[in-house]
Amino acid sequence: MEFSSKLLEKAVNEMSQLPGVGKRTALRLVLHMLRQPKEQTAGLTEAIQAMRNNVKFCQSCHNISDNILCEICSSHNRNTEIVCVVEDIKDVMAIENTSSFKGLYHVLGGKISPMDGIGPHDLNIESLVKKVKDGKVKELIFALSSTMEGDTTNFYVFKQIQDYDVVTSTIARGISVGDELEYADEITLGRSIVNRIPFESSLKL
Amino acid sequence: MEFSSKLLEKAVNEMSQLPGVGKRTALRLVLHMLRQPKEQTAGLTEAIQAMRNNVKFCQSCHNISDNILCEICSSHNRNTEIVCVVEDIKDVMAIENTSSFKGLYHVLGGKISPMDGIGPHDLNIESLVKKVKDGKVKELIFALSSTMEGDTTNFYVFKQIQDYDVVTSTIARGISVGDELEYADEITLGRSIVNRIPFESSLKL
Repeated sequence: MEFSSKLLEKAVNEMSQLPGVGKRTALRLVLHMLRQPKEQTAGLTEAIQAMRNNVKFCQSCHNISDNILCEICSSHNRNTEIVCVVEDIKDVMAIENTSSFKGLYHVLGGKISPMDGIGPHDLNIESLVKKVKDGKVKELIFALSSTMEGDTTNFYVFKQIQDYDVVTSTIARGISVGDELEYADEITLGRSIVNRIPFESSLKL
Repeated sequence: MEFSSKLLEKAVNEMSQLPGVGKRTALRLVLHMLRQPKEQTAGLTEAIQAMRNNVKFCQSCHNISDNILCEICSSHNRNTEIVCVVEDIKDVMAIENTSSFKGLYHVLGGKISPMDGIGPHDLNIESLVKKVKDGKVKELIFALSSTMEGDTTNFYVFKQIQDYDVVTSTIARGISVGDELEYADEITLGRSIVNRIPFESSLKL
């Protein structure tokens, strides 16, 4: 791509470093900014800079936070004895949106994935094990994605804490609400039969 | 979407103002920035700011430029008597990439589109007509998109300059190179037969 302006070229090249943004998309976004008032672009860049430079990670659960402890960890309305283990802050947001969980979270920051060069020491596992060792946690809920890497990570963490007095559970796998059985994959359908629940329990939600 | 950080929320909200970027995409991009070194995000925001504050529009053709005249208008290797009329700077880049045009451009900045509230006076038409009146242009090539708005704009400009001594042409519409006839729409195929060209001419490219 030939650019008539070096400034434009630099902005497009920087934008296209973002994941899922190619040169054409970057050009479209940058040309859009040129059509907007300068204040709008200044607002965008200042918000990004402020976020990048000042955002903190909660010292307890590693969620993104504006303070040392995040709003969830510093809340008095949460059950601090139940901890839900997730990969990413996006998972915290997804579970919070359901309003069905009132415990705390622990964000691992990824999954064990040797193919991507991510080992247990790249994740926030040590601080989780410490929480369990200190006896602060009565139940751990594993809410990682249902992939090879997710299962490996669950198992690794489980091995580290199995000798301590803590209940471990994992979120239910099954047919999504509203899905038709004939389109479900066999493994999910099979598991949903093996792990069936009493009918009365299903009436609660 | 519930955010655990106001800084994060602001950055996501600002990003999602960009066209084609929803809240989820904005969150993904912002979380990506958090995983990158601070210098990378600073590079991005500085490049955008520098571009937005310092980029100029060529006084002659309205293309984006770092100087008063763009590289094309100030080049000595271009035929200044042929002017290609385009909607947008992206079209200049597309035609430049073909290396088949050695004249100058004139960027209108859009098309006449009453539905979007864009009239002739919102576009760079006056300066184009002035170029023609001054006798600087021998041929105008209309290279607008083949839509109702594009055709309207072509016709509007044509009406303004038809009394002056200038040849007007429009880029050829026809079957794309490599396309199969059976999948072409009827209007394009019909026009490509009506506007057929001598076989010898087709051997030149």
